[in-house]
Formats: sequence, structure tokens, C-alpha cells
Amino acid sequence: MRTAICDRFGIDLPLFAFSHCRDVVAAVTNAGGFGVLGAVAYSPEQLDAELTWIDGQVGGRPYGVDVLVPGRTDASAADRGVRLLDAVPERHRDFVAHLFAKYGVGGGEAVSAFAEGVGRRVTPEGAAGLVDVALEHPIGLIASALGPPPPEMVSRARQAGVPVAALVGTVEHARRQVAAGADLIVAQGSEAGGHTGEISTMVLVPQVVDAVDVPVLAAGGIADGRQAAAALALGAEGVWCGSVWLTTQEAETPPVVKEKLLAAGSADTVRSRSRTGKPARQLRSAWTEEWDNAPESPGPLPMPLQMPLSEGALARIGRAAERGDPGARELATYFVGQVVGQLDQVKPARQVVYDMAGQLAAAVERLQAVTSGASGGPHG
Amino acid sequence: MRTAICDRFGIDLPLFAFSHCRDVVAAVTNAGGFGVLGAVAYSPEQLDAELTWIDGQVGGRPYGVDVLVPGRTDASAADRGVRLLDAVPERHRDFVAHLFAKYGVGGGEAVSAFAEGVGRRVTPEGAAGLVDVALEHPIGLIASALGPPPPEMVSRARQAGVPVAALVGTVEHARRQVAAGADLIVAQGSEAGGHTGEISTMVLVPQVVDAVDVPVLAAGGIADGRQAAAALALGAEGVWCGSVWLTTQEAETPPVVKEKLLAAGSADTVRSRSRTGKPARQLRSAWTEEWDNAPESPGPLPMPLQMPLSEGALARIGRAAERGDPGARELATYFVGQVVGQLDQVKPARQVVYDMAGQLAAAVERLQAVTSGASGGPHG
Repeated sequence: MRTAICDRFGIDLPLFAFSHCRDVVAAVTNAGGFGVLGAVAYSPEQLDAELTWIDGQVGGRPYGVDVLVPGRTDASAADRGVRLLDAVPERHRDFVAHLFAKYGVGGGEAVSAFAEGVGRRVTPEGAAGLVDVALEHPIGLIASALGPPPPEMVSRARQAGVPVAALVGTVEHARRQVAAGADLIVAQGSEAGGHTGEISTMVLVPQVVDAVDVPVLAAGGIADGRQAAAALALGAEGVWCGSVWLTTQEAETPPVVKEKLLAAGSADTVRSRSRTGKPARQLRSAWTEEWDNAPESPGPLPMPLQMPLSEGALARIGRAAERGDPGARELATYFVGQVVGQLDQVKPARQVVYDMAGQLAAAVERLQAVTSGASGGPHG
Repeated sequence: MRTAICDRFGIDLPLFAFSHCRDVVAAVTNAGGFGVLGAVAYSPEQLDAELTWIDGQVGGRPYGVDVLVPGRTDASAADRGVRLLDAVPERHRDFVAHLFAKYGVGGGEAVSAFAEGVGRRVTPEGAAGLVDVALEHPIGLIASALGPPPPEMVSRARQAGVPVAALVGTVEHARRQVAAGADLIVAQGSEAGGHTGEISTMVLVPQVVDAVDVPVLAAGGIADGRQAAAALALGAEGVWCGSVWLTTQEAETPPVVKEKLLAAGSADTVRSRSRTGKPARQLRSAWTEEWDNAPESPGPLPMPLQMPLSEGALARIGRAAERGDPGARELATYFVGQVVGQLDQVKPARQVVYDMAGQLAAAVERLQAVTSGASGGPHG
């Protein structure tokens, strides 16, 4: 099961795995795919430690790093003299305090240094620090998850001989990203977890494939091998999956969240601005419902201002949920795509890779039977 | 290119074409696919005339009819003594009058006998009249586009030996529809035109295939052969397309709407309640924007009450747009899926069928090359 991209990236399967968890990244790379570590949750020092650990695990096999560089953020984030948190209006802090009271969430600060750091890192300056660290490791790809990769990032990656990938949700963005230097486009449909546009994978991928002359990976709605085969049929050279790793054994997903993910159906996600300030698909929970629909909600702040507020609050909510607070459990949410409805058991990440490869081969065999004129049922 | 469904339905290609236009239905059937006429716009007498015309064109080749039977509608629709129009609140009529004034739409009534009739036909009683007429013709399928097929419809179809298809947007609905007697499930993703749910085709289809033991067609996001191949990879036995026919030579789509469709991108549709009262994907226009976002909008009425209002108004808007009124042109809209971004030329319906078949075969060949270990680019 090899596409042109396999030779280019030195992998056996055209399967890219996005995860915030180093264990998943290493496991997928070691199983013949390509692990990509989401760096936004880490400080540059922490990222260095994570990548050093991965280097020790993968024995030279390829992996990559993903940073979040939004095209446009609130001006306050650019001003290093201002704490992000100080730019959060009173009304929004009060709403979070109201949610804590309403749902009986105890303990801790609503915001934190961690949250402040996350907000800082989704700026061009913040991302640059992570890129510097990443390029000191033998990475095989650096990805920019929002907006065109900054010229500085592209030139540093080029110097280091590292291809740059960019996630896009429209054909226009794909063209712009390639013009900005992207070597690989990840066309991500609206069904994906995290920051997404409104166009579905089925519709987006063929249009992006036709519009750009670099390889395209499909993302969004891909958690089994039938969906991977569909992505290749659409013209993608490979797939980029995120949600499917959240319920693997290796994932550091908090137990309460993992339980909610395993129980959720595909209708239980929502594209909401309540976590980062930009529309991002996640598990529908009391958090997203209150921010998006409660009459007293002040509405989410623009990125990155919503982040110190939400990351701090959700960290506290997570701790309370793990202690068993029922209100905190209702509030708990996590970035995940509509494929969450397919995730119903915990498996090793390696097993997910092998299952997808087997299902992909079976799907292609079934299609072959159809084209050769033989009648075959959906499983025949 | 045959699946099990081809033998069952007596067709050469597993391609079902939904259209309100008899010429498209006949052309697709004659090209080896399966045309399905949307009946909601017709009175029973008109439907009889349309089907008689189709019978004369297709020489016994198979075609079907689609009716709209919502599971739940406003109670007023059930009361035949009340004109639907009389149940439309003053505030909603005033809003339409305001839109006519604001956009300079001249001439005619805001509502009409036609519009009243359409509203009536999306009720179980109204649909029954259409079903009676349809079953007097040699149809090969009767489809119910919203909600489980009524028991009366299923038993009449069974007696006539005509399979019943049902469109669904969730796994739960698929199970319910099969329990209600559906012989074929059309799993329709949120990217589709017309009434849709929120789950994408990529995510929905494999789950529905796994959940029911009847054949599944994929709908939503399918306008070329790569997308058809992807649908088969997902486990569907065939595809159900609607939008792609709107810009064919045969389609009766009004010229202004056709122009708007050819110019639109995939981001130019919206899922809005402004036309029928239930969420339906259509071209984003001043009509959808005003109903959904204007501060003075009273919000759409529930189905079927919104229909006499919107169908009457949009008929008048259509006439004014064809006369060249720029405001009416802004307001004009039409049900269409996100694939509208791929529709950029007018082709005969027959040609669309042949192109899709060719692209499907090429996509499967490309996948074969991948599984056999050869490296192949997206077009290789």
C-alpha cells in the first residue's frame, strides 16, 4: 500500500497521525506511518524534551511537528508588554465564574500561567520559538495548522531541508499556502476535529487536488480503512488523522474525556468558538452549549484572547471531573471530529494503523471486483 | 461497473439521479442510470402527466419517484379546513413585504395557489395522493425524503412490488427507516443540497452500512466519478446525486439560478430553515441571509407553514430576476449541495453520466496501482 508520498517521506503507509501525545507519534512512526506531534501545548523547553524522547524511540524513522500560526489574531497578543489575561474583559471572566458556580466546579484558578503560555504560542512570535526547537531535531515535516506558514518559518525549514505542510479548508487557502511555500497540503473537511472550515472532505479534496501541484493529504472523517480508501479515491496521496488516536492506549487523553469520547455518537460534536476564539470542532458539552447558546453568554473572545480563559478554566474543570464532580463532567470537552461515533474501544495505536491498512486493502479489493464486472455486496 | 444493486434495479451503473425535471430523469435512465423524479412540486394530475411523458421516453427502462413526507409538521397542515396561508402570522407576511420593498421586487402576489399546494403536499395526506398516481405507472422505486415512510405508503408499494427507499442523515434514522419497511437506504451527508442533517457523507456512510442489512446508497458531495468511487469505497452500493443535474442542458433550472450556480463556490451554500421551515442546504443569497441574520427577521416558521410564504415569494422573485431586477437576483436561491463549486459548465445529462462512469473507472484503476505496490501520483 504505497503512494508516491511514501517514497518521498520514507514511510510504508500513506498515513499521517496528528497527536499531542509523544507515545502516539512514536507508535505510528514505528508501525510504518508518519507521526506528527502537536506542539502548541508545550513550551520550547518542553517540546525539546518531548522530541528528544521521540528521537530515542523511533530509531531514525520519520516524524514531524505541528505548530498553530493563525493568519490573524487579536492585536493584544502581539504586544508582549500586556499579559493576555489582562486583556480579557471582566464580563468574560464573570461568565466563567458563573459557570463554575452553576456547575459546582471547585478549586484552583480560572486562569493560569500555562493558559497564558498557550495563548502566547499561537502567535507568529510564539510559534517561531517552537519552530527553532523543532528544527534542531531530525524532523521530516513541519506543519502549520492555521493560516499560511510565515515566510520566516518557510525559509528556516527550507534551509534545514524540511518540507512544510499546511492545513486548509478551502481551495483559495490551498492556492495561497502553496504560493507561500507549502510543500504539502492537508485538505481538511468540516467534519474534522479542531479548527475547521465549512466544506466537507468529500467536496474539498478533489477540488484542492485539481487546484495545486503539490501532494495533497485528506483530513476529516477518516478513522477506518474504508475512509482512507475513499480519500485516495478522491485524489489524495495519503490521509491525515487526528481523532482516532484519542482513544488509543497510548493517548494521554484524560480518563473522563476518553469515556465521553467512547460513548459519543457522530451527532455529538459541534463547531464552536468557545475554546480558542475560532470555530473548532469538539465534543458538545455544557461548556460549548453555555458559551454558544446561553442568554447570559458574552460570546467567545477572538483568538488568542479566548484561550487563556478557556484553557485555564478547562484545566480546572478537568481536574474536578477526574475527582468525580458531576457538573465538571458535564462541562468537560475535547477537540474531536465527527468520527468520534466510530470510536468505541481502546486499542494500541499500532493496532489502529494495522487495522486501517487491512481495511484499506479490503476496500480496494471490493472496488476491483466492482470494476471487473463481478457483482459484490458492500462486504463482498 | 456493476454492483449488486445494478442487478436488482436493472441498471448498468449504480447511479441514482434525483431531479425535479422529467427530461433529466429520462436522460439518466436512458444512459444506464436510474432517474428519480421529485414529485413535491406537482399536483397529482401534473405528476400523472409527467410520468406518462417519461414512460414514453424510457422504453421500459427503470425510473422512480420521490415524495416528501416529513415525520412531524405543524398541526395546521393536518386541518384541511384551514388554508395554510391563513395560519401564517402577520409578522411573517410583513417581513416578506419588507424584503420585496427593500430589494425592489415588483409585481404579483407574495403567495399563490401553487405555494399553498406545495405546502399541502408535504403532509402524509398530501403525499398519499402523489403515491397513488406514481403506483399507476411502471416505477421501479418510490423514495421518501423526510422521516420514515408512512405504513400506508409502504404497504401500497409492497402490494405493487415497488421497493421503498428512504433518505436518512443519522444511523438512528437509518435503523428506524428499515424497521418501518425501507428496502433501500440513502445515507445523505450534511454537504448535500436540500434537507440535510449535520453529519458528513464520509462519516455517515460507513456507519449506516454497518448498522443496516439493506443496500445503502451514498448521497451528498458526489458530482464526479472520484466522489462516486469514494462512496463505493465507504461501503455504499451506489450513489444518489441531485445537485449535479441542475446545470445540465435538460434541467429546467431558471437561467438566473443556473448562472448563479455556475459562478458559485463550495463555500456559497448554507443550511437554512428559510425556505421550508426545516434545515435545507441551498445557495446563500439575500433571502437566506435576511431570514437567518437580519435583526428584524421574525425567523422562519415551522414546516409546512414557511412553504406557502417562501415558495410564493421566491416564485415572484424568480420572475423579477428573469426580468433583470438586480434586487431580485440577489434574493434568488435554490436547493444545492456543496458540490456546486465543481459545477462550471452546462453539459447534457447523458454526458454527466458517461463522465462519472469514466472517472470512477480511472479512480479505481489508480487505487489498484497503489495496492499493487506501484507508486502512482494522484492522476497516475
